Amino acid sequence: MNIKEAFTKHIFDLQNRICTALEKADGKAKFVEDSWERPGGGGGKTRIITHGNVFEKGGVNTSTVHGELPDVFKEKFGVNEARFYACGLSLVIHPTSPKIPTVHANWRYFEMYNAAGEIIKRWFGGGTDLTPYYLVEEDAQHFHNTMKNMCDQHNSSYYPKFKKACDAYFFNSHRDETRGIGGIFYDYMQQDDRMTWEALLAFQLDAGKCFEEAYLPLVEKHKTETYTKEQKYWQEIRRGRYVEFNLLHDRGTQFGIKTKGRTESILMSLPATVRWDYDFKTEKGSDEAKLIEVLMNPKDWV
Amino acid sequence: MNIKEAFTKHIFDLQNRICTALEKADGKAKFVEDSWERPGGGGGKTRIITHGNVFEKGGVNTSTVHGELPDVFKEKFGVNEARFYACGLSLVIHPTSPKIPTVHANWRYFEMYNAAGEIIKRWFGGGTDLTPYYLVEEDAQHFHNTMKNMCDQHNSSYYPKFKKACDAYFFNSHRDETRGIGGIFYDYMQQDDRMTWEALLAFQLDAGKCFEEAYLPLVEKHKTETYTKEQKYWQEIRRGRYVEFNLLHDRGTQFGIKTKGRTESILMSLPATVRWDYDFKTEKGSDEAKLIEVLMNPKDWV
Repeated sequence: MNIKEAFTKHIFDLQNRICTALEKADGKAKFVEDSWERPGGGGGKTRIITHGNVFEKGGVNTSTVHGELPDVFKEKFGVNEARFYACGLSLVIHPTSPKIPTVHANWRYFEMYNAAGEIIKRWFGGGTDLTPYYLVEEDAQHFHNTMKNMCDQHNSSYYPKFKKACDAYFFNSHRDETRGIGGIFYDYMQQDDRMTWEALLAFQLDAGKCFEEAYLPLVEKHKTETYTKEQKYWQEIRRGRYVEFNLLHDRGTQFGIKTKGRTESILMSLPATVRWDYDFKTEKGSDEAKLIEVLMNPKDWV
Repeated sequence: MNIKEAFTKHIFDLQNRICTALEKADGKAKFVEDSWERPGGGGGKTRIITHGNVFEKGGVNTSTVHGELPDVFKEKFGVNEARFYACGLSLVIHPTSPKIPTVHANWRYFEMYNAAGEIIKRWFGGGTDLTPYYLVEEDAQHFHNTMKNMCDQHNSSYYPKFKKACDAYFFNSHRDETRGIGGIFYDYMQQDDRMTWEALLAFQLDAGKCFEEAYLPLVEKHKTETYTKEQKYWQEIRRGRYVEFNLLHDRGTQFGIKTKGRTESILMSLPATVRWDYDFKTEKGSDEAKLIEVLMNPKDWV
């Protein structure tokens, strides 16, 4: 099987499938597509949804880029001349209601070639993580169980390892909080004694396909709930933490910005309306404080 | 003259003076002070103004910190053991009205000591820069002329050099725009043939003292002007660019966050309400487009 072709086809199918499912859940807004080309080779399809019944702002983007390996990567991998191919799907969905969690997911594949065109390095990376504004334990359990069940069908060591990696990665060190309640995160995933490239591809396809099962039931469950002005305010404060993570700590964002990636496709991850109050404090014992408690002390949800 | 003592006294006087002047211009809100201590030595006085008649959110902060030089600095300066003293005043003022520019200023002094307690390195740094939401040429001229006149009293090479450095530093490379219309910016300023430490101190004191003359007339001029919902929306979009600069590019913010500085004092620079639209576009020939034009092609204002 040609891993590159199979995964590339998959991300386009998945983009269609996820956009259709989100449009259905929203009931009003439709994704609008912006196609773009990368000067060095390749391009992407950025699909944005805004001002929906349910979704205030979201993007479900694919990109397939190739060409001469950027210099920063050459240095990192200690190669002089190399070409590459990278493709992936990246999504961030910010619902209007503070009762519905924000979700982020990303699935990607990378290949690097020598002058003869042979693959000298390749890997899968990805993950799916949830950022609620109010903690609903059953939601967290449902989300993590979906990830665990999917992982367990491929390799029972994956979920515990990737859950931990997710909490470690999505961490606002300057706040001593995780960005959300996590999920799974993995990178530089390569063939080993147990997992062939074909097995890794099968895992990566399923990781993408289980997104809908993990997230959409939470949307359906909460989308008709009412919320107060104060709860919306809290959501906007928490969105500030989301922005802080993405701009201060996220490697993908920093890398994209510094290598002159397409700014609007990278920063589509930022929420529509955001708030920073000086030294915002939650009330002791409040629902807001309960969320912070879990972000400061990540829990096992399965 | 003891430079350290003189400058330290100055920043506290200046903090009082600037806060009083801003409160007077606001007519309603008062600064609230948070004193904090740094575990390794020293501390700061963070003063925040919010929900004023004029100022939506602002901070005028002083800090005087000392102790063992942090490891990142030791590496940078190639020393094994060193102690340091650093003090400065840092301010960011975000008015409610999009007709009044946001302003940022910072004046700082740093000393490094060997084991015998002798100064082995020291410098001044600082700057003042303006971020309008609508371009008013006379305002830009007034602001820059104030900086130039102040600089010229000390060293005629300063203004041209520091104006250029300001445009280069406050640059959102991923947007190909400066953050605002600039002002002056300087760092690692040390004694040379022309400027003694005393002369540098005199410059640094005047740089701080001219802040009120540079900024307050713009507040007075615009504070009674009305503005539309669309103009407020535009301000919030532009505030997004301000956040992007501070979190993605600003060396001070990155350094503060990574060396575990006081998060709330560092991030007081972020505006209260901020907006990110996907691929926001200005209308051709509009006032909004005129601002962008100048941010993409910095002008000489004097």
